[in-house]
Amino acid sequence: MRIASKVKDYTLEMAEDVLGRREELLAPWAKARKHFFVDENVLSVYRDHIEAFVGDDSITVIPARETRKSYEGLTEYYSALIDSGFRRSDLLVTFGGGILQDISGFIASTLYRGVPWVFFPTTLLAQADSCIGSKTSINFGDAKNLLGTFYPPDAIFVDASFCTTLADEYFNSGLGEIIKFHLMSDERGYDLLKRYLASPDLRTSPLFEGIVLSTLEIKRSYFEGDEFDSGRRNLLNYGHCFGHALESASAFGVSHGEAVIVGMGVADLVSLRRGIVSPETYEEFEAVLRPHYPRFDLAAISASEIVRYLKKDKKRASEQLTMILSRGVGDQLKVDDLTEEEFISAYEEFLKVFPGKEGV
Amino acid sequence: MRIASKVKDYTLEMAEDVLGRREELLAPWAKARKHFFVDENVLSVYRDHIEAFVGDDSITVIPARETRKSYEGLTEYYSALIDSGFRRSDLLVTFGGGILQDISGFIASTLYRGVPWVFFPTTLLAQADSCIGSKTSINFGDAKNLLGTFYPPDAIFVDASFCTTLADEYFNSGLGEIIKFHLMSDERGYDLLKRYLASPDLRTSPLFEGIVLSTLEIKRSYFEGDEFDSGRRNLLNYGHCFGHALESASAFGVSHGEAVIVGMGVADLVSLRRGIVSPETYEEFEAVLRPHYPRFDLAAISASEIVRYLKKDKKRASEQLTMILSRGVGDQLKVDDLTEEEFISAYEEFLKVFPGKEGV
Repeated sequence: MRIASKVKDYTLEMAEDVLGRREELLAPWAKARKHFFVDENVLSVYRDHIEAFVGDDSITVIPARETRKSYEGLTEYYSALIDSGFRRSDLLVTFGGGILQDISGFIASTLYRGVPWVFFPTTLLAQADSCIGSKTSINFGDAKNLLGTFYPPDAIFVDASFCTTLADEYFNSGLGEIIKFHLMSDERGYDLLKRYLASPDLRTSPLFEGIVLSTLEIKRSYFEGDEFDSGRRNLLNYGHCFGHALESASAFGVSHGEAVIVGMGVADLVSLRRGIVSPETYEEFEAVLRPHYPRFDLAAISASEIVRYLKKDKKRASEQLTMILSRGVGDQLKVDDLTEEEFISAYEEFLKVFPGKEGV
Repeated sequence: MRIASKVKDYTLEMAEDVLGRREELLAPWAKARKHFFVDENVLSVYRDHIEAFVGDDSITVIPARETRKSYEGLTEYYSALIDSGFRRSDLLVTFGGGILQDISGFIASTLYRGVPWVFFPTTLLAQADSCIGSKTSINFGDAKNLLGTFYPPDAIFVDASFCTTLADEYFNSGLGEIIKFHLMSDERGYDLLKRYLASPDLRTSPLFEGIVLSTLEIKRSYFEGDEFDSGRRNLLNYGHCFGHALESASAFGVSHGEAVIVGMGVADLVSLRRGIVSPETYEEFEAVLRPHYPRFDLAAISASEIVRYLKKDKKRASEQLTMILSRGVGDQLKVDDLTEEEFISAYEEFLKVFPGKEGV
């Protein structure tokens, strides 16, 4: 898969046994010194293979916590690179999920005004979604993803086998985005999604690699031609306006993709109340989302707390709140005129249908 | 002047009486709320006009000190913008020189992954050089400009009258880059430079606006087609390898452009010792540079201190030191094979010809 970008074109390859193929995969950078950013958890699970892969090069081990991808938190990782003697022509290599990607991408885009970077995504969310599209996101203060740049890796290698050792929470987080993209595609994509979700085991499903690739293709169709996010790409924020606010309000206790699933549920309910989606389509979407809602006490998070974060949404262009609503499969739209009252009323109605901590 | 950029195309306009023309100059952003970043010194000199220009919009006053454009130092200005309720579609407007430009540009490129930005350069260095080319530069730790992005303003308005109130030190700093660019142009440009430098008063010279525009045109000819700095644009670093090191080693006691003048002198001497420039051309360049060398005790800065900073040069691609050498007007080249010994020996020879603090 070759992806066009104004910054630099780049490639994505579905690859098996990546940890045994350093020389081959990194051949274009054979002469460059390398520095590795490796997720702490990935290192503990794949220690021998990762250490062999890193070899004599330098490495920084990074815990995948939201607090680490804050503006202030990055200082430590800039220093690690600079202190290792990293030069403009050296190569940064990352093994990890979205948080490691954000840390690596922001640093790679701003150190020396841009250095080469290769990414091995190890979570479902990173493999099926965030690895392409060239966005990097950094938290500032207590608000998520306020800062960022557009900077793709030079190459991405997706080894689906990393997902076999993924904790449920991380797998479900990726699932949230997979569902979102297919609700935004077309009847064929929506059908593939429903067949995949009907698999007895989602990780070992024969449809797994296909649904990952399909998700990436849908995403590419949205951002190519709108890389800098001024139009159609914006719709990919379906479920994210509320989702980001929920992540922040829960102090990141709810994972990204799970928050997006809840966010789609809320957006669909606002759409229903505005009469732009039929009750039948609404019910059908609810049936897709409902089994994947995270089990937690959403009612403990007040509407006013959510509103406070919604107002920090970086895509907000008016005095009112912004949300991506849905009229059906592949038919989302952005509204800038959501009032606090309309949102709060919809949220309170949503709390009544949300299964909650006990899954009731 | 319309300038092409991969990020976004932008315009530069030589404009008079900008402080009286807010509605007209900012007409394309009439509906956007504005936030102003204004240099503390510019505000004190032009207080009434600036306050009238800002009107009811919000403003942050920033002292033009290198320490303010550090990664850690930016936190304060990000917060000022965010706390003012700044949104992705609002407009950042900057009045100031290179430091304000760097602070504004880095923040504009990373806040919400990019916000609109209009720049009114108020120093000669910013007007004649840094305002175009889309680079932003941020200090990290004690090393200058290690971090940065590529992000041009949406529009630049150059009002030469700001230079009439500029302190000598800042005027001379701009002069350093004006000299550099014309040494890198052609015989016609070199001739214009010599005629300009022969003016009785450089600030009120009838050639002043012409030399500013000429400098911008030469710079554009170097970076268009190489915006991201992988080839020819690199040559613009003539005088900068040593210059940046000197700025750092002097704790920014030597201004940027003045450091570049010294840096060209050192680079020319290395070129002479390598036999790639003729003694005649070397002497002629020395005659151009010499009257503009800053008066300070260069010998107090040891060669090893300079080497330490040269090794942090972000453009360094090999184990040796990097420097842009010169064979003559418009004929510079980059070398990556400068050894410490060669540099130290040239530096010690240079100290013998450098006029020093007393101008001897």
